[in-house]
Amino acid sequence: MEKKIGGQTLRLSHPPAIIACANIGGKQEGEGPLADYFDELSEDSFFGEKTWEKAESTMQKRVLNRALEKAGLRAKDVDFVFAGDLLNQCIGSSFSLRDFGIPFYGLYGACSTMGESLALASLLLDGGFGKIIAAMTSSHFCTAERQYRMPVPYGNQRTPTAQWTATAAGCSLLAAGGKGPVITHVTCGKVIDKGICDANNMGAAMAPAAYDTLSAFFQDTQTSPGDYDLIATGDLGRLGHDIVVDLFRADGIEMGENYTDCGLLLYDLKQQDMHCGASGCGCSASVLNGYLLRQMEERSWKKLLFAPTGALLSPTSSFQGESVPGICHAVLIEQRS
Amino acid sequence: MEKKIGGQTLRLSHPPAIIACANIGGKQEGEGPLADYFDELSEDSFFGEKTWEKAESTMQKRVLNRALEKAGLRAKDVDFVFAGDLLNQCIGSSFSLRDFGIPFYGLYGACSTMGESLALASLLLDGGFGKIIAAMTSSHFCTAERQYRMPVPYGNQRTPTAQWTATAAGCSLLAAGGKGPVITHVTCGKVIDKGICDANNMGAAMAPAAYDTLSAFFQDTQTSPGDYDLIATGDLGRLGHDIVVDLFRADGIEMGENYTDCGLLLYDLKQQDMHCGASGCGCSASVLNGYLLRQMEERSWKKLLFAPTGALLSPTSSFQGESVPGICHAVLIEQRS
Repeated sequence: MEKKIGGQTLRLSHPPAIIACANIGGKQEGEGPLADYFDELSEDSFFGEKTWEKAESTMQKRVLNRALEKAGLRAKDVDFVFAGDLLNQCIGSSFSLRDFGIPFYGLYGACSTMGESLALASLLLDGGFGKIIAAMTSSHFCTAERQYRMPVPYGNQRTPTAQWTATAAGCSLLAAGGKGPVITHVTCGKVIDKGICDANNMGAAMAPAAYDTLSAFFQDTQTSPGDYDLIATGDLGRLGHDIVVDLFRADGIEMGENYTDCGLLLYDLKQQDMHCGASGCGCSASVLNGYLLRQMEERSWKKLLFAPTGALLSPTSSFQGESVPGICHAVLIEQRS
Repeated sequence: MEKKIGGQTLRLSHPPAIIACANIGGKQEGEGPLADYFDELSEDSFFGEKTWEKAESTMQKRVLNRALEKAGLRAKDVDFVFAGDLLNQCIGSSFSLRDFGIPFYGLYGACSTMGESLALASLLLDGGFGKIIAAMTSSHFCTAERQYRMPVPYGNQRTPTAQWTATAAGCSLLAAGGKGPVITHVTCGKVIDKGICDANNMGAAMAPAAYDTLSAFFQDTQTSPGDYDLIATGDLGRLGHDIVVDLFRADGIEMGENYTDCGLLLYDLKQQDMHCGASGCGCSASVLNGYLLRQMEERSWKKLLFAPTGALLSPTSSFQGESVPGICHAVLIEQRS
């Protein structure tokens, strides 16, 4: 019965396929190098709504509808949706799902949510609990700034280690026995806290979690970084990416050229003023459900290890002097056709 | 492969057992009728910490440790923990889990979290993805008041429809093939929004979600309320409970004497000044993982239908004029020995 290999990784007996994916982005995402890989880009940060929070819900609505369209499915064909976001009480997800009538398990994994939702969707499909499951998340620069830092009109100065929360959403539709790249392995992360207290240095706070989960994955699967066409963490940005490389180097493991981070891909870090790179649930969600899955097909990649990370802080925890714990959830996506 | 019966309910092939449970409460919970059913009661609302938010994390830590002790297990024996809470970014759960090293899937289901965590834990065990999984949640009157309404020292006046957020936590340890009551069916809820905009009337906002999920459950399992020894919703309180009764009555279904709500059980509503009753994730979590599971054993109940509800609002969504969507996740717990 048990499907666990090693200490922390699950190998799926019936790997579910990503049968459709969709993403949506805002103005900055449209000015970045991945613009061509978005299904929809909006110049209007309100996405036609009156507030940015409602805009974020609308992004999730649209991205789910788009994924359903691409798959030729209706909402009632979907057994479950796993979704979450960064907003207090995850209102981005819950308000977006009001009109769909799809059974919904709400998640909170901060910026690891795309990994967490894909993991749980895969496990439920592998376990025979459904036929079609959606995995979805979003973030919005203006809702995140207001909630975590300062309202945007305040013109707050950003520190050099800061990242730019992506205004973006992504959705994957998974099916038991469908056509498309399949999820073959899932590694659930632990809460890792190395005592970083600077809430403006999320990369440093989350890197140890990425290292922990990826180490467990390599050990459990008896593989090394060179066995994968691409390893992509979620939104560690420039600093966090380099810390992961260093942490593995200390173990004698070279992450190599095929290790990247979605926070390095979404924007042009030379031209766009994004400091350490992109962040937010929507960063890895939109990069995966556009660029990465398209590249997998176009470049005939066989194995993509996707491992988004989340910083499990809140403004309250930081005000109370707490450090920033991180978590990283990994899924292995393979092209088998 | 598919385990779905009817439209929304899953019947488990290998029902996992609740091998141990634990709960913890505060002063008001210790003055209520269920005081004898708590593992630990604290007169100190800070639980030895400097802030109420840290107190809430400490409650989760203690309740997980207590459940592990009762089961004679260590943290490293646990494959996953599913946990979440009401605090922004769910810091009650993530900070509590820093020292355990257990792979963690974070949830946000508002006050339905005990149902959601039990559901996902059961599905993963039934699917063979682990041997031991913990399901846990908490709430704290003072953290919830500060976050959703007013800081407690402000002495805010409460409306008659208001409920009292329980200062409590509960944890269930589930095992594949263990000894104890088993979870045999799981019904995942949908987001239901009937347009209630009064954030101080959560019972009315959540009742339609309870009605929706319980209706689906009865239909899918071809059963009626009389088939269960007890049906307990989570924290609808007096008003929400009565609305559920009315909604079913309109369908010609009598919920009957065996339908109750954890929000009606936790406090003495005649003696304690709790208005419409208890609420918060910790309400249903502590009532289930104490009173209800003990009663199941002592009164030889065969079937307990546990269906906690969550209100998926945030202060921001209410400020922006939004209504209050609700969700309800149900699990059927059966005594088979």
